[in-house]
Amino acid sequence: MSEINEKNERLENFPYTVDIPTRWGDYDLLNHLNNVSYYRFFEIIVVGFIEQIGRLDWLADQVVPFAAESKCLFLRPLAYQETVQGGLSVEMMSNRSATYKIALFGEASHTPAAVGHFVHVFVDRNTSRPVQIPDKTRQGFQKYC
Amino acid sequence: MSEINEKNERLENFPYTVDIPTRWGDYDLLNHLNNVSYYRFFEIIVVGFIEQIGRLDWLADQVVPFAAESKCLFLRPLAYQETVQGGLSVEMMSNRSATYKIALFGEASHTPAAVGHFVHVFVDRNTSRPVQIPDKTRQGFQKYC
Amino acid sequence: MSEINEKNERLENFPYTVDIPTRWGDYDLLNHLNNVSYYRFFEIIVVGFIEQIGRLDWLADQVVPFAAESKCLFLRPLAYQETVQGGLSVEMMSNRSATYKIALFGEASHTPAAVGHFVHVFVDRNTSRPVQIPDKTRQGFQKYC
Amino acid sequence: MSEINEKNERLENFPYTVDIPTRWGDYDLLNHLNNVSYYRFFEIIVVGFIEQIGRLDWLADQVVPFAAESKCLFLRPLAYQETVQGGLSVEMMSNRSATYKIALFGEASHTPAAVGHFVHVFVDRNTSRPVQIPDKTRQGFQKYC
Repeated sequence: MSEINEKNERLENFPYTVDIPTRWGDYDLLNHLNNVSYYRFFEIIVVGFIEQIGRLDWLADQVVPFAAESKCLFLRPLAYQETVQGGLSVEMMSNRSATYKIALFGEASHTPAAVGHFVHVFVDRNTSRPVQIPDKTRQGFQKYC
Repeated sequence: MSEINEKNERLENFPYTVDIPTRWGDYDLLNHLNNVSYYRFFEIIVVGFIEQIGRLDWLADQVVPFAAESKCLFLRPLAYQETVQGGLSVEMMSNRSATYKIALFGEASHTPAAVGHFVHVFVDRNTSRPVQIPDKTRQGFQKYC
Repeated sequence: MSEINEKNERLENFPYTVDIPTRWGDYDLLNHLNNVSYYRFFEIIVVGFIEQIGRLDWLADQVVPFAAESKCLFLRPLAYQETVQGGLSVEMMSNRSATYKIALFGEASHTPAAVGHFVHVFVDRNTSRPVQIPDKTRQGFQKYC
Repeated sequence: MSEINEKNERLENFPYTVDIPTRWGDYDLLNHLNNVSYYRFFEIIVVGFIEQIGRLDWLADQVVPFAAESKCLFLRPLAYQETVQGGLSVEMMSNRSATYKIALFGEASHTPAAVGHFVHVFVDRNTSRPVQIPDKTRQGFQKYC
């Protein structure tokens, strides 16, 4: 992916969106949203998507997703109290894994503050070995590709 | 970078290493080190490197580094109480930015638990515009390339 | 305060209330909201109250509040995905400090999951010495006693 | 407890002590150790004490401690990069609960930066009902009263 393309992303292009209320503790000594908080926000978006759209129960289901890879381009600092919205689309789905495209937007600009991706591999909770994405999850994901 | 190559990384290949004492709060409901904590650990490694080797003072210097990009491949879960060591090398240095290669190792295996990178762009603290890497920092970094 | 009285607190008795969306990272290995997260939620409530009702600007105002003391009784564990609501009332106000009573409620019970307090001392941002609570803040607080 | 007495606490009076490496993310917009981080540090001290001295295994033992109450007096701000040491003594032990006195010290002063306590109730992991403190734990604690 090129940085120029990433800057052209818009929230309305993402089929799944979330409002993310920020917390005092998400910011750091440099008065910006801390770089680690971006990944915390990615996780909020992904966990919500997995539960609501993928209909997975992390604590009870036999198949759970493990994080396999993530990446973030930090395009613009987010200031304290700037509201944050996140967008997600399913970029790729194979038998056993899914890649989500994710972006974060503030209120000061229509261009994204950050763009990245997050890869889930679905594993058996006891053996930690990759298994097929459950049908209920695959069906849920298909409308968000 | 390919996943096969990443699995061949070894701690002794990294010129800068750090012991990272983990905290109860770094782990999550699935009993592993939470994926966001990996980036917290990347930050611990990078901030230590910037201060000790790059001799930067985040709160006083006119030039400070901003996170521009980061990425992590999660290769192996880290269990509660497994000790963690981090390694860093400077993968690339341009006039105004530096890319660090980073890996995390546990005690259960010589292969890395995670491999990734982190890109810093050096900016003027008032304007947030990119500027040259300060000489003291560049000189410090050169032994870690 | 006695534990029996604390268990009788109800959300509707608090003049200031906040919905707190929880995050995956707020929970710990024992599958409950981590004890430290309760204080993170106290902070969310207090920071919101200070900004909205006390009309303080943390980054610009000359007088800012410092945490002087806090306490929490953990009365009932909060399970993953249980919604959380916080309540606050001003328990005491002196010239230079304010004590807030705070409680957290889940959806599984009308009794509080946690009850505590938080004390702010107002200080000059440059000297860190206690000063009078600003008038705008005192006036805002008075309706929440 | 009175604030005057608390300020007289010294690290050498605590039988159990821990060095706590701080992290960039422990500090906040006001350039001090965030108030919530004090409780994170309390947890680091208590969890270490429970594991090393109380010889408890959080993930395997049938009896585990639950947080019942905690409190902190914030006596002095801790600046970025100030080293932190924690001290703990067992203040009280009943059949089913233990109260630890805890203090945090920086390098800028011999007086404590914070003093507080933390109460554990020991419960059966399945029923969450209070049970006797296990013998191995009681014996370990006795030397730290």
